[in-house]
Amino acid sequence: MSRPAARPEDEREFVKEIPSKAEQFSDWYTAVVLKAELADYSPVRGCIVVRPYGYATWELIQQGLDRRFKATGHVNAYFPLFIPRSFLEREAKHVEGFAPEVAWVTRGGGEELNEPLAVRPTSETVIGHMYARWIRSYRDLPVLINQWCNVVRWEKATRPFLRTMEFLWQEGHTAHRTAEEAEAEARQMLEIYRDFAETDAAIPVLSGRKPESEKFPGAERSYTIEALMPDGQALQSGTSHYLGQNFARAFDIKFLDSDNTEKHAYTTSWGVSWRVLGGTIMVHGDDRGLVLPPALAPFQVVVVPIMSGPKRDEVLAAARDLARRLGAVARVRLDDRTEVTPGWKYNDWEMRGVPLRLEIGPRDLAQQQVVLAPRAGGGKRPAPISGLEQAVPAALAEVQRGLFDRAKAYLDAHIVAVSSLAELVEAVAARRGFVRAVWCGTDACDQSIRKASGASPRVITEETADGPCVACGSPARDVVYFARAY
Amino acid sequence: MSRPAARPEDEREFVKEIPSKAEQFSDWYTAVVLKAELADYSPVRGCIVVRPYGYATWELIQQGLDRRFKATGHVNAYFPLFIPRSFLEREAKHVEGFAPEVAWVTRGGGEELNEPLAVRPTSETVIGHMYARWIRSYRDLPVLINQWCNVVRWEKATRPFLRTMEFLWQEGHTAHRTAEEAEAEARQMLEIYRDFAETDAAIPVLSGRKPESEKFPGAERSYTIEALMPDGQALQSGTSHYLGQNFARAFDIKFLDSDNTEKHAYTTSWGVSWRVLGGTIMVHGDDRGLVLPPALAPFQVVVVPIMSGPKRDEVLAAARDLARRLGAVARVRLDDRTEVTPGWKYNDWEMRGVPLRLEIGPRDLAQQQVVLAPRAGGGKRPAPISGLEQAVPAALAEVQRGLFDRAKAYLDAHIVAVSSLAELVEAVAARRGFVRAVWCGTDACDQSIRKASGASPRVITEETADGPCVACGSPARDVVYFARAY
Repeated sequence: MSRPAARPEDEREFVKEIPSKAEQFSDWYTAVVLKAELADYSPVRGCIVVRPYGYATWELIQQGLDRRFKATGHVNAYFPLFIPRSFLEREAKHVEGFAPEVAWVTRGGGEELNEPLAVRPTSETVIGHMYARWIRSYRDLPVLINQWCNVVRWEKATRPFLRTMEFLWQEGHTAHRTAEEAEAEARQMLEIYRDFAETDAAIPVLSGRKPESEKFPGAERSYTIEALMPDGQALQSGTSHYLGQNFARAFDIKFLDSDNTEKHAYTTSWGVSWRVLGGTIMVHGDDRGLVLPPALAPFQVVVVPIMSGPKRDEVLAAARDLARRLGAVARVRLDDRTEVTPGWKYNDWEMRGVPLRLEIGPRDLAQQQVVLAPRAGGGKRPAPISGLEQAVPAALAEVQRGLFDRAKAYLDAHIVAVSSLAELVEAVAARRGFVRAVWCGTDACDQSIRKASGASPRVITEETADGPCVACGSPARDVVYFARAY
Repeated sequence: MSRPAARPEDEREFVKEIPSKAEQFSDWYTAVVLKAELADYSPVRGCIVVRPYGYATWELIQQGLDRRFKATGHVNAYFPLFIPRSFLEREAKHVEGFAPEVAWVTRGGGEELNEPLAVRPTSETVIGHMYARWIRSYRDLPVLINQWCNVVRWEKATRPFLRTMEFLWQEGHTAHRTAEEAEAEARQMLEIYRDFAETDAAIPVLSGRKPESEKFPGAERSYTIEALMPDGQALQSGTSHYLGQNFARAFDIKFLDSDNTEKHAYTTSWGVSWRVLGGTIMVHGDDRGLVLPPALAPFQVVVVPIMSGPKRDEVLAAARDLARRLGAVARVRLDDRTEVTPGWKYNDWEMRGVPLRLEIGPRDLAQQQVVLAPRAGGGKRPAPISGLEQAVPAALAEVQRGLFDRAKAYLDAHIVAVSSLAELVEAVAARRGFVRAVWCGTDACDQSIRKASGASPRVITEETADGPCVACGSPARDVVYFARAY
């Protein structure tokens, strides 16, 4: 059985046109964010408002990450929004990295403050200060704390979720007895981010170390997951940092070890922001709007009754019953509005990226079936009502897998290996995606490649490098992926 | 079967003494907060750090409220931390109420700002601005949005959870077509707060309207739930405001009604902060430390194996098995530390307020039983291992009920009715709790009662007033409860 997606007369009211994703990618992105009501611009430059539909998606992102954090022994806590200026200044590289981006509170309660307070751009310093108070003995270690909060980094440009002055994120901060343990933690969290991105957001990533030039200010080593966007640019989607003893020395985080000597702890930090929602929009969306992977969809299924003709009441009752029953196996929304047509609803929910539409009309009801219409990757098909508790989760799993497979095929097709700087420059200019090369890893070559291509080294893998550096020709040390980046 | 709470030699290391709750209430409170590791002071005056155990409790508070909000059709969203100065100034009473408490960002990205940005003390203004953009037609109403976030109100004094410069809360903001609908919303949310306080936090409250002098700046009517603390002071624990058209006029929130005329919407706002955690600590705690109601306890049950003698390994294995099994019906923690004694653990978990301790030793194991030791309200008793999946939830429900009943009896015993100002002043001075009186409701009498007694009118009930005003003797309008307040 087949049915047209929407009868022409149904579509006359639907006017939320979206620019072409292929031709006007940036406009397409903004239109999807606004028209799907994920976010809106705010009266404060650089800040956005996350609307209920966008926030519900963020809540699912939070749950997916939080579950993984707790399963690996982490606990949540909350540290102050404000950080004394002197704290930011205590770790030399840290202040150098963050000072230009800080928003400063200079007046409060009607008075000028003696010491301005930074609105936290990140919380290593104030958390380091507290860890120094809490940690006394090796028995107090490890400390494995995460925080969900807002942070502020001064920005002039705004791209919803991708670049905003205030953003929501989580920042994990851990302290350990040994360098090995801290290093293992930093890598474990990177792996959790990779798993979340690929399993929940259906976004394949490259995962590995950052080059020196891209390290977190104050870190010994930074790790990153990098996703490829449809415009050929990389999106850093989560980072994890091994901080060595840098912050422990700056904030005096010491413990008495079992050998009765006092030692500085080793710390890590790691974070994912609502930027991952921006990546999800860009990777999966299409010219009809948003496409949400079922794991992150506030409504996984929308039930649309075709309420025409004499069987109207029976159809509505059956749709209500279905929505209620399926609520046990999926997040379901019944669209029983009467002021818009079924075709209008199809367009509306497609624009909002609901993974699976379930249509039921008088003819379906007579045959005790519904029509399942996946938002992406699969045609419409009838399904018997009796088996929907199994068929719907199966269809959602298929959509989730399909989105990942499609994105993975795209990523694989957009990694190009080069062996000369000219090739690298040409590949970046042609927006071919990640450009794979080997390099010597010196700052000089890093800079010269950036200058020549406009791309930056995004991630260093653990593969063995072979051959001459793509920039200087001396023996290579690492395999690196380059790209322009958000 | 009985067993001493802890053998004397077990207690030698436990040194976290807490001042007497009856004699040094304020010191007792601070000690419990710090020693139970709920919170710690931070390097920024007025700000606190919420430690993992305190934050886990806050997460349960959030879940209890959020579930109720969503069940009544509300959705979450997120609005900016910063608010332009001009916004705060647009509603006259609002700016008057909040301006003295605002923290101002005056510098960002290395530059002085043209217009300072307020760190949100509450979000009516910026949300009102957005609602004006989103609401066009009566079909767009009601808008039922809640936000979980941090807010800042400049404070010099700090009392963890009760009075802090930055605090976490939720603020609901709704817009409606009619005054009646908005009024019903404000009352519905008050009732949700009452239900949460009494059911989850086990804190009985007085619920009703606030007097004119205590209204939210910009509200037509404010509603409140007020709890009684053991020092005889009231704690405002949740407020809900009917804002009429005040913010709708200030921010131009208009809609085209079905009669084709343009009208201003009617709005509400309502909030609960982490203060409710402070109330929970004060109401239920005792000289051994924190007492958490099971609904808000991160660990509802702690399993303590008595690991001595030849059966040590069997006992530990049985305790592990129990903790795993009971994990299906309660939040369970196994304390299998070997560096401290069982008696030390008893003290430690009592101090942290875990509702139910489950002890298992070699003799218990031989008899296939455990000892259940409720933290409050009930003696230790043996229970067969086979029936614990039923016995443990039943014991937790009994503890929850017991805490509420005890607090309710205390509240009922600490409401004193007076019929003269002299009696009112005497009752407040003697810290007898809520002082019930009837009054005329004029500002003059409000002020004279405050001045004479140091107490404020906390809540106006819906009872019919009878007799002369307690202050001026003219015919009374309302029944009012007075108290000193946090």
